[in-house]
Amino acid sequence: MKAITIPTPGEHDALILADVPDPTPGPGEARIRVAAAGVNRADVMQRKGFYPPPAGASAYPGLEVSGTIDALGEGVEGWAVGDEVCALLTGGGYAELVAVPATQLLPIPAGISLRDAAALPEVTCTVWSNVFLTANLQPGEFFLCHGGSSGIGTMAIQLARAVGARVAVTAGSQDKLDVCRDLGAEVLINYRDEDFVARVKEASDGRGADVILDNMGAKYLPRNVDALAVNGRLVVIGLQGGAVGELNLGQLLTKRAAVIATSLRARPAGEKATIVAAVREHVWPLIAAGDVTPVIQASYPLAEAAQAHRDLEASQHIGKLLLLP
Amino acid sequence: MKAITIPTPGEHDALILADVPDPTPGPGEARIRVAAAGVNRADVMQRKGFYPPPAGASAYPGLEVSGTIDALGEGVEGWAVGDEVCALLTGGGYAELVAVPATQLLPIPAGISLRDAAALPEVTCTVWSNVFLTANLQPGEFFLCHGGSSGIGTMAIQLARAVGARVAVTAGSQDKLDVCRDLGAEVLINYRDEDFVARVKEASDGRGADVILDNMGAKYLPRNVDALAVNGRLVVIGLQGGAVGELNLGQLLTKRAAVIATSLRARPAGEKATIVAAVREHVWPLIAAGDVTPVIQASYPLAEAAQAHRDLEASQHIGKLLLLP
Repeated sequence: MKAITIPTPGEHDALILADVPDPTPGPGEARIRVAAAGVNRADVMQRKGFYPPPAGASAYPGLEVSGTIDALGEGVEGWAVGDEVCALLTGGGYAELVAVPATQLLPIPAGISLRDAAALPEVTCTVWSNVFLTANLQPGEFFLCHGGSSGIGTMAIQLARAVGARVAVTAGSQDKLDVCRDLGAEVLINYRDEDFVARVKEASDGRGADVILDNMGAKYLPRNVDALAVNGRLVVIGLQGGAVGELNLGQLLTKRAAVIATSLRARPAGEKATIVAAVREHVWPLIAAGDVTPVIQASYPLAEAAQAHRDLEASQHIGKLLLLP
Repeated sequence: MKAITIPTPGEHDALILADVPDPTPGPGEARIRVAAAGVNRADVMQRKGFYPPPAGASAYPGLEVSGTIDALGEGVEGWAVGDEVCALLTGGGYAELVAVPATQLLPIPAGISLRDAAALPEVTCTVWSNVFLTANLQPGEFFLCHGGSSGIGTMAIQLARAVGARVAVTAGSQDKLDVCRDLGAEVLINYRDEDFVARVKEASDGRGADVILDNMGAKYLPRNVDALAVNGRLVVIGLQGGAVGELNLGQLLTKRAAVIATSLRARPAGEKATIVAAVREHVWPLIAAGDVTPVIQASYPLAEAAQAHRDLEASQHIGKLLLLP
C-alpha cells in the first residue's frame, strides 16, 4: 500500500509518500481501506520528531480515518467486512490501509458522508473525554473554549451547547468568530485585542468560567486560573504557548479549582474503548439528529500531506482538514 | 461567655481572652457548650490577619469543637438539648459557647471521650473531602501524605490504610516517622535528608503516587508533579511553602494528571453538610470499630491559647492540640 512516512523528522517535506507493506489485523483488530484521514496537530508534532508514536503503534502519522472494513482479525464481533466505519487510531491513518482495535471503531452517523466522517473520531473523543468525562461540564455552566474555530473548538462549541452550557470562545479573527457564533457560541473574544479574563467575568456576572478547554498551555496558565469560577476546572490539551508556566496555588485554593492536563493518544486501549463507547452513546445521536455537525475546511490528496500540514500550521483554516488516499 | 478574641492581628499575644455576648442559635442551628476546641493552622493564619472569617462567620477563631447542646434554634430535627456532639465550624470554637448549623453536627463516636472528639471534625472532614471525595483514592493505590505527623496527616494515614491504599509519608524527624509507621504508613521519608520523589518511585516500581496530599504549596509543586503516577491527583490544602510555583504542564499532560487546590472553611453550608454526612457514614464506623483513632498531643486551658499557637508553629508536636474552656 501507499502511506505517508517520516524517514527523517523535520519540516513539511519530511512527509514522504512511499510504498510500504500492508498492515495485518491482529486479534481483536479490523483493517480499514481508508476513504479519508483527519489531520491533527499531534501529526505535526510527530513530523517534527517531538511526539514519537507510543509503543506498538504504527510508525506512520494519522490518528483518525473513515473507510470500509476489508479484513478482520481473530475474535472480532459486531463488525463485518464491508462495513463503513470511522475509527480513532494510535497512528497510521495517512495510508491506504490501517489496522485498529475493533473497540475503536464507530459506525458512520446517519446523514454524514463516508469521507466527512473522518473528521469526527479525534475531535469527538477529545472533547467528550475532556470536557464531559474529565471536567464534567453541566447544563447551565459557563464554558470557555480557546481556539474556538479549530477542529476541536468547532466540536466543543456544539457539544457544550447541546448539553445546555453557555459558551465563550477565543479566536484570532472576526471570520473565525462568526463561524463560532453560528455554531452556538455566545461570547466571542478576539484574543488579538481583547482580554479574555475580563470578557468572561463580565459575561458571567463576575463568576468566571466553570470549565476551560485550553490548547495554549503555559502562556495562558495564569490568565486561565484568573478566569476560573469557584469549583472551576481548567483542562489543558495543547501546549502551543509552552509547557512550563506559573501557577498561583493561592488563587486556585481560594477557588477550590483544578488544573488537569491530558492527551488522548497515549491512553491505553482500554481507556480508548471506554471513551469511544461513551461517544457512540452520547455524541452519535446528536450528530444523527443534525444538532452537531463536523466542520471541514478542505480535503487534499494523500500525496499532498505536506500542503495540509503547511495550511494547518498557518492557522487560517476553520474546522478540520482531511487527506484522501 | 468567655472567648478568645483577636482585637489586633499579630503574634501569639494577639489572642486575648475576653467576656463577650453569648451567641444565639439561629434557625437550623444548635448552640454547643464547648468541652474542647481543636487548634488548626487556619487559626494561626486568622490570628496573623491573613485569613479573615468568611461573611456571616463568628469573628473568633476555632474551626471545631466538642461539647453538649444547650439550646436549639427553630426547625432543628434529630438533635436535642443535652446531646453530646462534636461539630465542624466556620469559626468561633475558642469559646465557652458556639452556634453552628445542625447539618455540621456529629455524634460522639463510640469509644471516644467527649473531649477527644474535638480533635475529629476538621481532620476527618478535610481528609475525607480531599483524599476520597475529590481525589477518589482507591484500594491498592499509592498515597503520599506530606506532613504525616500533623493532625491531618495522622488521620490521612489511618483512613488511607483503612480503605486498602499503600501509604508513604514525609516528616522532619525519626520520632515523627515512628508514629506514622505505627499508624500504618509503609514508606517513611525524612524530608530533611531524603528525596521524596526518588523514594516514592522506588517504592512504587517507578509508577509514582496516585494521590498526593500536600500542605507545602509552591515549594513542593515541581517535585510533587514529578512524583505523580499516570492519572495521578495532587491535592494542595496548605501553602506553607508559598503560593506561586512553577507547573510543568508538559509533564502533567504526559501523565494525564490533575492539580487541585481546596479549602474546607470557605465552602458554602450545603457543601459542608454533604461532607459531614459522608464522614458520618464512612469514617464514624471506622472510629467506632477502633480502626481509626484521633492522635492528640496536648490540651491547654482556653486562656493559654497563645501557648498552643506557639507550640503548633514550632511543629514539634504529633497530631492535634486542644483548648479546654
